[in-house]
Formats: sequence, C-alpha cells, structure tokens
Amino acid sequence: MIYSQSVLLIDLNALKENYLFLKQTAPNSICAAVVKNNAYGLGIERVVPALREVGCNDFFVALAVEGERVRSVAPQANIYVLQGIGDDSVKLFQDNKLIPVISTPAMFKFWMKNKIDGIKPVLNIETGLNRLGFRKKDVMALTEDEKKEFSYLLSHLACADEPYHFMNRHQIKEFDEMKKMLPNLKSTLSASDGVFLGENFQKDMVRLGAAMYGLNTAPDRQNKMKAVVHLKAPVLQIANVSDGEYIGYGASYKTKKEMKIAIVSIGYADGLPRSLMGRGRVFFLDQEIRLIGRLSMDNLMCDVTDVKGLKEGMFVDVLNNHYTADDMGADAGTIGYEILNGVCKSGRVQIIEKK
Amino acid sequence: MIYSQSVLLIDLNALKENYLFLKQTAPNSICAAVVKNNAYGLGIERVVPALREVGCNDFFVALAVEGERVRSVAPQANIYVLQGIGDDSVKLFQDNKLIPVISTPAMFKFWMKNKIDGIKPVLNIETGLNRLGFRKKDVMALTEDEKKEFSYLLSHLACADEPYHFMNRHQIKEFDEMKKMLPNLKSTLSASDGVFLGENFQKDMVRLGAAMYGLNTAPDRQNKMKAVVHLKAPVLQIANVSDGEYIGYGASYKTKKEMKIAIVSIGYADGLPRSLMGRGRVFFLDQEIRLIGRLSMDNLMCDVTDVKGLKEGMFVDVLNNHYTADDMGADAGTIGYEILNGVCKSGRVQIIEKK
Repeated sequence: MIYSQSVLLIDLNALKENYLFLKQTAPNSICAAVVKNNAYGLGIERVVPALREVGCNDFFVALAVEGERVRSVAPQANIYVLQGIGDDSVKLFQDNKLIPVISTPAMFKFWMKNKIDGIKPVLNIETGLNRLGFRKKDVMALTEDEKKEFSYLLSHLACADEPYHFMNRHQIKEFDEMKKMLPNLKSTLSASDGVFLGENFQKDMVRLGAAMYGLNTAPDRQNKMKAVVHLKAPVLQIANVSDGEYIGYGASYKTKKEMKIAIVSIGYADGLPRSLMGRGRVFFLDQEIRLIGRLSMDNLMCDVTDVKGLKEGMFVDVLNNHYTADDMGADAGTIGYEILNGVCKSGRVQIIEKK
Repeated sequence: MIYSQSVLLIDLNALKENYLFLKQTAPNSICAAVVKNNAYGLGIERVVPALREVGCNDFFVALAVEGERVRSVAPQANIYVLQGIGDDSVKLFQDNKLIPVISTPAMFKFWMKNKIDGIKPVLNIETGLNRLGFRKKDVMALTEDEKKEFSYLLSHLACADEPYHFMNRHQIKEFDEMKKMLPNLKSTLSASDGVFLGENFQKDMVRLGAAMYGLNTAPDRQNKMKAVVHLKAPVLQIANVSDGEYIGYGASYKTKKEMKIAIVSIGYADGLPRSLMGRGRVFFLDQEIRLIGRLSMDNLMCDVTDVKGLKEGMFVDVLNNHYTADDMGADAGTIGYEILNGVCKSGRVQIIEKK
C-alpha cells in the first residue's frame, strides 16, 4: 500500500477519563474545562460535546469568537471569556450570553456601559504572575455597589507546576487577602496544575486545561493522565545511502557509513517543530528511530539501518502513549502545549476520532 | 477602545508583485506557484485566485487533499502533487485531474495500474538532497515505453539558499546527466532560491514558494520581496511593577527596577514561538519593545517603561515591513517559513485581505 497523509487520532474517551480523574481530585469544586485555542487545537465542536457527556457545564475560552463556537454546541453552558469584553467583541457577548472576565478598570467601565441582562462577570485579580488583572489599588477603588456586579473572583498561578515554589504560597496569600475585600464572591484560582496543590487551592471552581488534554506540565509529578493525541505518519520511501553522502537541506548531515534511510511523509507543515532536527525520534513497534538532517515542510528523514520489519507504505508512530507531546516538547526544547498546538492545527492530517 | 483579538493583514498585492518580480527573473520558464501547506498558511482559496489574476496556471501542492482545494478555485490549472499518488489519494486524483509527482518505483507501479486519462505524471529524481525520488538505478531500470509515461523530470536543490555551495554544482551536474536518459521530458529543478542561481538552473519550469510569500531564505541576499503578512496585537493592560517583582510563568523574570509593562493579547496560540522568550520584540511606531518573561498561550508581556505614546487599547506591530517573519525566525532560532506557518494557521486572529 502507498500512503502520503499522516493520521491524527483524537481519543475522546481518554479526554473524558482525564476529566473525571481530575474531578475526583477536586471533588468539592466545580470542574470547568478550558477550551480556548480551539480546545488546545483538538477542536471545540469535538471536545465540548464530549465533556458535556461527563457532566461539564462550565467552559473557559480566551476570545469571544471562541465562545460563540462553544455556544453553538452547548446551549445551556456557562461560557467564560478570559481576555474579556471590548469594542471588537461586545456583540458576540450579547448574542451568545458570554460571561466576561474583567481584568482592567477600563474594561470594567466598558462593562458598566454595556451590561448584558442576566450575566455577572468574573473579576480577575493579579496576585504574582504579573499578567492581566486588577492590581490591589484597582480593587480598593471599587465601590460596594460595583463589587456586587461580579459573580466570581479569579486569579492564575505562575508556578503551580512546581509544588514547592515560593510563588504558590505568595499567590494564595495575596488571593485570600484580596478575597476579604470581596467576601460575597465565589472564587477560582487554579488550573490543572493547581488542582494537585490540594484543597486549599481548589476553591469553588477549578479550570481544567493541560492535564485534561493528557499533558504533564509538572515533570516531577508522575503523569496519571492518558494521552489524548496519537499521531502516525507513512513511510513513502526507503533508500540506501552510501558513506559520505549528505542528507536534507543545507547538507547539514553527512553519512559516516552506508546506511538505510526512510523518508516519512510528515514535516513542520504538520506541526512538528523544526528544532527537532538532530534530536527528534519516531517509533516502529518498540524500535526507536532517530531523525537525521533537517526537518523539511512535508518530510522527515530518519535512520532505519538497524530497524527490523519496516517497509515502504507502513506507518511510524510520531506521538503515542510512550512518546507523548511532552516528550517531543522536551526533545524540541519547548513544552507539550506548543506541540499539541502545532500538530492539531496543521490542518493537513487526517483526523480520526475515537469515542 | 478595548480590543482583544489580533489582526493579520494579508497583502495580496504584495504577493502578486512578488510573483511578477520572480517571473521577470526567470523570463523563459513557466512560473508555477507552490501552494502546499494551505499556501504556506495564507489560504489556498485566497492565494490561488490572486495568482491566477497575474497569469499563473501551474500549482504545486504536497497532498491530494490540498489539490482538491486548488481545483475548486482553478478549474483549468495544472495541479501537481509532490507527495504523489497512493491508496489514500487515488480517488482525489481521478476526481480532480491532479498530476502526481512519482518518487518511487513502487509508486510508479501503482500509477501504471491506476492511470488517469489525459494525465502525464512528473518523475522526481534524487540528485543530492537524499529525500524523495528515483535513485539513478531506479531510472536506469525504466523501459523506453515507461519513460514515455512522464511529462516532466523534477528534482529539488538542497542548498540553493547558498549560491556558492558545492552542492548546487553537484546537483545540477547529476540532474543534467540523468536528464540525458530521458531526453524527451521537460524539466524543473528550482524553487524560489534556485531562480536566483541563474538561467542554467531555471529549466522549463520553476516552482515559486518562499520568496513569493515575501520570505528571504538566503540571508546573504538582499530581500527584494515585499512582506505579504502583517500582524498586530492589542494592548489589553499597562501596569506599573515594583522593583523585585516576578513576571510571567515560572517566575523566570525578576524586575531590577520599577517598570511599566504592557500585557498584549497574543501568545503561542496565535503562532508566536515560545522560544521568543528573552529574545522577542514588538514595535510601536518606530520604538522597539522587548518581550519579558515567558510567552504564554494568549498573552505576552513587554517592557514599555520608556515607550512614548502607547496606551491601553492601542495595537503594537508584531510583524511588519521592518520586522518580518524572517526576523522573528532569527530571534526565535528558526526560519521565516515556520513563523508564517504558525501565525497563519493559528485560526484565531482576525484576517483582513488587502487586494
């Protein structure tokens, strides 16, 4: 057989199991799902219905355009928009009953002029990440009436992937102190990593993202999540190469012996980072195969001299249960998030859903 | 005003001008356009009609699924598929009259069993890149009748971005020698970079890709191309930060003085590489602004302490005529191709076409 298109398997069962596992870990909190960035690339219209099946009714997105897509498949859900409301999104908020996360005094002023019936926004406060959020002075400037506008108090941890990082203690202290100024609000502080920091960090709602998608963002923690994404790519050609030949762009790799190479039909257009060159790996059964030369847009070359059983037309594993997005991220000098983002958004691979 | 969505401007006039400039550089060759990978991310349905307006009638894609999309907007064009034909694509070839590039003896055998009326495939030969292609022994094994199956002989240069690289001389020698075995075929050897190597490399057809999209893949060559892609992102918040505070995930950046930071609504979900951290820049008017801390999924932070005139709600330039995808690639330790790929495929930015 001859194939040229890579295949991305999205295991929605694994996603649901991950969600339910995390829910057990935070049993007293609402477990919202973070589905921004097209559900980390996996597809909002695919991921949201799957999560609704296991009881999720609260979704976080970054932008209102994403919220509109969540609304189309979740008519009754609470949909929170992290980057907030503004001139370029107010109509989408109205039409789709989206809940803005308000992060600046200017945005709050905008909200007061553009309130939406039945919607109570979330107040994002800055506690140490130094990203978006009301600073303490901004919170202090709110009147008692203004404080009643909000439903939730929200912040975000900078170092939740390192359980003993001083920043976690600093941020929860700041959060709890600022919470005293807004005693009637419910609160949400933690994303996936924060869930593992214990009940104190879980508050009324947690926002599950990375871990739910199978990523392990804390290298010191054993990954209990199941891989949601599997990627395989077809071998288009196997060729013998003499000693002293060059392989790939820039002639950057020179062979030191006769070798057998495989040309695999996947490249950085399919979301693999170019920085894998010299460091990347693919797999055939339990055999590890090293990438050689530069990764190009549509192909990679690898050394199959000693690989048994691999023939043209067969598929190699690019991401599987044993070599995950986190592992590829480590090889490429980045993190699993960025791998997932690239691979899932390539727009070229054939996507198969496992439900 | 308050905005949260980034804006990507695609300048189709610049694209057309680049095409016409390259056509002048290779006046005796057919100038095909490489529109694989969704036209390097810019959108097949947007790019192909623009190029047809300036007379382009030959298009190269990597996969048949891409060829189908080209056919939908170019009913009469010649559409070549670089990764070739196989079991997973034969129907698309038939339905859309696609022309396969044949790279292996097994694929040629497949073609002979699945020929399509009126279509003559391209023969890809390996001349030094050691990627896909017939090796010399494979060409020698073709019968005279089999040779008549093909329309074009194709190869691809490994080091065309370095005009004096020995590999260019090696490859053209190999190509011209193997061409003697197939004297009746037309030939195509060069992509954008090869065009600049002179008439000898231009043959009957050149395949314009990177340069047409405004990329300068040869750093030693002055870039005569116009930037096709411009990206800007809104400032959501400007905040004062004290001496000794931490900024961003992992608390990786510690301030050494009081400073003013801007939180800009763009991140790696929008295709910026995480490896920009510590090295990336954005621009406001002619002022350069340094990124600080880690780039996150939806936001970046930057130092605007000394920046004049920038206010919340304004936009900063992320890619423009003076800081191109190539420049960002250099800052991020990669190449402009990968930047274009990431930014254009993010699926979240608002796209505006300039025609």
